[in-house]
Amino acid sequence: MAKDTFVENLADIETNFPQWYTDVVKKTQLVDYGPVKGTMVIRPYGYAIWENIQKELDARFKATGHTNAYFPLLIPMSFFTREAEHVEGFAPEVAVVTHAGGEELAEPLAIRPTSETIIGNMYSKWVQSYRDLPILINQWANVMRWEKTTRPFLRTSEFLWQEGHTVHATEDEAEEETMKMLGVYKEFAENVLAIPVICGRKTEKEKFAGAVATYGMEAMMKDGKSLQAGTSHYLGQNFSKAFDIKFLDKDGALKYGYTTSWGVSTRLIGAIIMAHGDARGLVLPPKVAPVQAVIVPIAAKKGGVLEACAEIKAELEAAGVRVVFDNTDNSPGWKFNEWEMKGVPVRIEVGPRDLEAGNVVIFRRDKCEKGESPRAGVAQTVVSLLGDIQKNMLESARVRRDQRIVKVDDLDGILKGVEGGNFVKAGWCGCRECEDKIKETTAASARVYAENLEHETCAVCGKKAKHTVFFARAY
Amino acid sequence: MAKDTFVENLADIETNFPQWYTDVVKKTQLVDYGPVKGTMVIRPYGYAIWENIQKELDARFKATGHTNAYFPLLIPMSFFTREAEHVEGFAPEVAVVTHAGGEELAEPLAIRPTSETIIGNMYSKWVQSYRDLPILINQWANVMRWEKTTRPFLRTSEFLWQEGHTVHATEDEAEEETMKMLGVYKEFAENVLAIPVICGRKTEKEKFAGAVATYGMEAMMKDGKSLQAGTSHYLGQNFSKAFDIKFLDKDGALKYGYTTSWGVSTRLIGAIIMAHGDARGLVLPPKVAPVQAVIVPIAAKKGGVLEACAEIKAELEAAGVRVVFDNTDNSPGWKFNEWEMKGVPVRIEVGPRDLEAGNVVIFRRDKCEKGESPRAGVAQTVVSLLGDIQKNMLESARVRRDQRIVKVDDLDGILKGVEGGNFVKAGWCGCRECEDKIKETTAASARVYAENLEHETCAVCGKKAKHTVFFARAY
Repeated sequence: MAKDTFVENLADIETNFPQWYTDVVKKTQLVDYGPVKGTMVIRPYGYAIWENIQKELDARFKATGHTNAYFPLLIPMSFFTREAEHVEGFAPEVAVVTHAGGEELAEPLAIRPTSETIIGNMYSKWVQSYRDLPILINQWANVMRWEKTTRPFLRTSEFLWQEGHTVHATEDEAEEETMKMLGVYKEFAENVLAIPVICGRKTEKEKFAGAVATYGMEAMMKDGKSLQAGTSHYLGQNFSKAFDIKFLDKDGALKYGYTTSWGVSTRLIGAIIMAHGDARGLVLPPKVAPVQAVIVPIAAKKGGVLEACAEIKAELEAAGVRVVFDNTDNSPGWKFNEWEMKGVPVRIEVGPRDLEAGNVVIFRRDKCEKGESPRAGVAQTVVSLLGDIQKNMLESARVRRDQRIVKVDDLDGILKGVEGGNFVKAGWCGCRECEDKIKETTAASARVYAENLEHETCAVCGKKAKHTVFFARAY
Repeated sequence: MAKDTFVENLADIETNFPQWYTDVVKKTQLVDYGPVKGTMVIRPYGYAIWENIQKELDARFKATGHTNAYFPLLIPMSFFTREAEHVEGFAPEVAVVTHAGGEELAEPLAIRPTSETIIGNMYSKWVQSYRDLPILINQWANVMRWEKTTRPFLRTSEFLWQEGHTVHATEDEAEEETMKMLGVYKEFAENVLAIPVICGRKTEKEKFAGAVATYGMEAMMKDGKSLQAGTSHYLGQNFSKAFDIKFLDKDGALKYGYTTSWGVSTRLIGAIIMAHGDARGLVLPPKVAPVQAVIVPIAAKKGGVLEACAEIKAELEAAGVRVVFDNTDNSPGWKFNEWEMKGVPVRIEVGPRDLEAGNVVIFRRDKCEKGESPRAGVAQTVVSLLGDIQKNMLESARVRRDQRIVKVDDLDGILKGVEGGNFVKAGWCGCRECEDKIKETTAASARVYAENLEHETCAVCGKKAKHTVFFARAY
């Protein structure tokens, strides 16, 4: 029953990226398809990545003064109609409960696609005075958006996420919160996921339904497409007016609060896969890898090998490394392939000859390089190597991305740019017609505004440019 | 605006326990009612207790070899019909999605009331060989059971829980798992929640719909009623046959697996409130208290008081204590009442006279006692006191409970026993008629079997007793 030949062939990443993605998520057991169309099961190996993401993000939310709470899954349908843009954006995607406890409900209930409405309804009860502000609450939850075409992690009818919802006394404070959380996401994406991101404001067309302004962070995948990896919304008084979130201010006047919301989801796992993966499969950043190092014995029956593996495992665990000692009876070659496909950052090969010479062999997944290393102090070597891999993965991704940002002047330039797998910077006059024209012609959408205006004219109509915009094809 | 008089009066715990409970959960801001009948919002103070519960339990699940995963919320209705007892038990409580994405669904979907069916469906794909076993997976999730009468934490249409689902090659291993997880729950209830529990097997009437055997842990509330605080089910081959979970065994034969499931929920927060609370409000065990110590300045404007409070706060934080320095402008008396109501285990009062004498005043919530304590080494004093409070709360609860377990011989004894707020041990012949008779006559239900048979005859029919059973009125 021992496995000698590695049979989990993946589709070619260069020529068939979509199939490569599907192969990787299934064969590494990150995910499986649920029985209902468009749903996914997050398997233990995938869920462990999510747990690491949660731990890192949750600590950052708490360090910035937020606490967690939990709001109900089911929202009265009537809540959606209170904010006009919001209902237009979300009603078509909603799953609706019409019966419960054997009876038809008086009012149908929506499974939350996002929680601004139900949380707004509660905040209106909790906020009375300026002393109750700010309210800084986050929720970890499942949400549901009924999508026509779905892909594991990227777009599924149900997904897991966090949604922060805050209320502030002033516009300034709410805007500051919006930008602060965008900054938290960016720092997290770069330092934990090793994914460089481009952050900026979204166009009216691409903003969150009901927001005054949406800020997004965009990550480049290896096929040159963009993945929206997180968003932070300044909601102004839109939801506080719709849900009557009012407070008595210091000056004795009754005022509406200013709200924000911000979220990231299990989509981030898709981002990790497509930002770092290669022909062999996953390449996981050490900070979120469920297994950071795997120990593989070579010629395991030779004296001392298994003992040395067990010792090394204990040393690594003591040093805080998440380690697996693969003592199954599969061949070493099979194990190499399997753990490489699963993206484990470091492999330690322990063989009798190396041991005699006082060495082990260490393989790093990010560069697919291996070499001898002293057996003594191996835990410290691995800890230091994990740090180096984390850093190198971010740097490599940054170099890859920066090479694929092109600045163009016209519609043809946008088309050629995105066909070549680039993010394209182009001038835009600010009108919806030109934005739509770009989408129709190039299948690229406006991702975010660049920080500075770098163009004089709009790529489409040639009128004066208001913004330089990043355009890309997107997930 | 500063508050001098404490106005959050609670109903009397002795004479109106149900209202006291409702007052406590609302006024301490553990929870609020959601807009849909029977739903609750778990507010930050309540959710922080749940987070502490999760952290403690999750570590225990992982230490016993389990990993987390996530399965879909929506289950095809047809899945329920595959296990006859299961559908009978859960179908009446199910909330049903009939429309999604603007269309009527071909098959209605249930929001999970529990996940044996959908997880069984996935396990049938994942399990092929004895090498794939055991499967030891846990899920943290929301579930929904449409209930007629609801109370926050105790019975709500939606609640949060964990559900473990395992598959084993043999009956013995599955039974061992069932008992092991019951043991994990018991150790957790006693050492973390400070709640002594009685564990044992449930009657056929009270068991989980679809189980071969259900084991429960029962906790005594201060009104003498029992709260089922957790259950562990041995499911035999019922679900593996219904969902075709088969494996090729070592001997070459194709066999059905043996499965278990086990769960605890946000109900545990209700257990904490009613097992420990008193006339002043909550009394939280230090291990799950969101705030373990509060620092209250006395005569805050006097020199050195605020500085000393800030220093003490820093010292406590460095010692790993979850601490709040209440520097609001409410009066000290108001603060005392509020933090006592919120159940904070330790209060440190810092006043100028005490400081001069090198002291602070320390109040412990469990005994409502206070006394002077040296300012020097206050962090160590508090850490040690928290340990003592944790231990004392369990011991006090155990004494209270043991005083209220009575052994009786007949139906009248059961009635008098439960009317007096006791758990009653009585003999039972094992027949459903006698069990129903007890319920009708006394409003008490069979909670769990006692470990040993201590009765010769059934309390109802007088025939030979098969079991000694704990009867109680229950939440």
